[in-house]
Amino acid sequence: MQIIKLALSKHPYSIIVGNQHIQGLGVLIKKLNIGDHAYIITNPLIRKQHGNKIDIALKKSNFRIRYALVKDAETSKSIGTASRIIRDIAAYDKKKRIFIIALGGGVIGDLAGFIASIYKRGVPYIQIPTTLLAQVDSSIGGKTAIDLAAGKNLVGAFYQPKLVFSDISLLHTLGLRQLRNGLAEIIKYAVIKDRVLFNYLEKKYQDILSLGPSALEFTVARCSLIKARIVKRDEKEEKGIRTILNFGHTIGHAIEAAQGYHGYNHGEAVSLGMLCACDIGESLGLTGRETTQRIERLITAVGLPTIIRKIPCKKIIEAHFHDKKFIGKKNRMVLITAIGKTKIKDNIPLATIRKALKKRS
Amino acid sequence: MQIIKLALSKHPYSIIVGNQHIQGLGVLIKKLNIGDHAYIITNPLIRKQHGNKIDIALKKSNFRIRYALVKDAETSKSIGTASRIIRDIAAYDKKKRIFIIALGGGVIGDLAGFIASIYKRGVPYIQIPTTLLAQVDSSIGGKTAIDLAAGKNLVGAFYQPKLVFSDISLLHTLGLRQLRNGLAEIIKYAVIKDRVLFNYLEKKYQDILSLGPSALEFTVARCSLIKARIVKRDEKEEKGIRTILNFGHTIGHAIEAAQGYHGYNHGEAVSLGMLCACDIGESLGLTGRETTQRIERLITAVGLPTIIRKIPCKKIIEAHFHDKKFIGKKNRMVLITAIGKTKIKDNIPLATIRKALKKRS
Repeated sequence: MQIIKLALSKHPYSIIVGNQHIQGLGVLIKKLNIGDHAYIITNPLIRKQHGNKIDIALKKSNFRIRYALVKDAETSKSIGTASRIIRDIAAYDKKKRIFIIALGGGVIGDLAGFIASIYKRGVPYIQIPTTLLAQVDSSIGGKTAIDLAAGKNLVGAFYQPKLVFSDISLLHTLGLRQLRNGLAEIIKYAVIKDRVLFNYLEKKYQDILSLGPSALEFTVARCSLIKARIVKRDEKEEKGIRTILNFGHTIGHAIEAAQGYHGYNHGEAVSLGMLCACDIGESLGLTGRETTQRIERLITAVGLPTIIRKIPCKKIIEAHFHDKKFIGKKNRMVLITAIGKTKIKDNIPLATIRKALKKRS
Repeated sequence: MQIIKLALSKHPYSIIVGNQHIQGLGVLIKKLNIGDHAYIITNPLIRKQHGNKIDIALKKSNFRIRYALVKDAETSKSIGTASRIIRDIAAYDKKKRIFIIALGGGVIGDLAGFIASIYKRGVPYIQIPTTLLAQVDSSIGGKTAIDLAAGKNLVGAFYQPKLVFSDISLLHTLGLRQLRNGLAEIIKYAVIKDRVLFNYLEKKYQDILSLGPSALEFTVARCSLIKARIVKRDEKEEKGIRTILNFGHTIGHAIEAAQGYHGYNHGEAVSLGMLCACDIGESLGLTGRETTQRIERLITAVGLPTIIRKIPCKKIIEAHFHDKKFIGKKNRMVLITAIGKTKIKDNIPLATIRKALKKRS
């Protein structure tokens, strides 16, 4: 088990990464002194797969439990679902000290975190991520949100959990595509910040995809630490430090938006986005050809895509203009000069972006 | 014109109190560099009364303007209204730099501030309070919220504006009952923190009720300064400092809730709550009889109620148990030992509260 501290000055918390340690969850939460009633937001499948273990661990420490179930889909990140759950919490919450548990992947983490942030102007919550992507990325850092028709994550808050509890045994129920989804973000961390991790991934990616416990625990803890360090320095994405986490995400988000969030999942789109960012870096003389090739080899090896299929380049360019980070400003992209080294570039010519997209189409 | 600084470490802002200074609004906002498009949330009456002046001031500084109108009622603080406005903002906001203006009383300030806090995880907003109550209290300090059926202000955020712009000329359209509504909070500030202000009010309350500009400007600025100092020391009501602002509000809120938010308005309920708190203080040997009498004389003189009519004491006690500040804890009340001096007491016996309520019924 590894404990990573996210030492924010106002609300520090721990990210605990381990294997089969759910039985200790109740005791851990008790120590936080955040309430007696756990309000768990999850989906029916996860409750069936993991609910029982969680219940036993919490009841052992005398917590009361209530579940709210949402559909296992991005559509759950809606104002409608959030309202329904908040009303249920308010009805349940008379004379209780409740806290919220987000038990699930990114959709549930974002939704539950947002609900926790606005109910009574903020109640404590805990992230128990159940996907590889959520364990290494979305559960850490306090970005919460729901979607509008006009765009994803348009309504939300920065609101930190009291604990992130990552148990790699929860990942055993994931399919190969979901594991690759997480691996894309893991590769991103390695590329932007951690040459050693990149070398490790080149050798051990197969262990991760086959759920080898030591490779998983090492990787989840290593990525959690990278993210924790970045978030600590720039909690609310105001200082341009957290920006580097967007490597591969500018084009990645545009690909997701251009296909109406069907087709490529987040990790697949980010893989394509990372390769486009490498190509753009090459065009601008920042990224060496051999660096791009090395990243492409790893992405290919783990089974993530390297070619954008069935999305017209024009649609991706259009979608990229709607990035909420650009509104009223110039475009901005995270590029790399080597593995582990980033450079933020503003005002990248459209022709350069178009050329990269054409190359990958 | 007076400028009061609310020197919060992360997001300091100014409260500007003046008379007929709206023509300078555009220049002021320009200096803040918060965007080019003003999205103004208000109600139809206020837009009719004051919209034109605001428009002229903003257009002079080249701001674009869009209005969102809500009903002039507490029911506008709903998830439904908030969603409708957020969707409108998102549709309007493509490639723009928008900021939000809350133009109105407490309902609009709470609603618009909450919307600003969650749209894109926070966009800048400005408070232009148009009631005396909002100028001295709700526009300052960043408490934003909407209501649920289960209770008022159950969903919200702490989210600070970039500017509070109080113009006492906006108060000319208010009726006497609305002015008294604000005076109740002004009396509260004097009682908890400012003996000099209390003496002043005893002499000058009539000037305030007849909209005398120097009395109004003095009082609004003085109360803004008191609130700013308290909020600076305890932005998120975590340190028990901001708690003293709840003087009169424990019973006040319970009275409002017991009557289903019909009948007494907030200031009237707070007046009754302040007198009950004095009575409770007397019972506990903290408050002198002559202090209570002096406060009661002022409350009577300004035309605020001193007797609770038509609400059974039992219902108020019941409602007081649902105070969201007590959940899972003991009750807590702000009492006074003299004018300008508070004492926070926990665990006040029900019998003592009941006795005070009976006396005032």
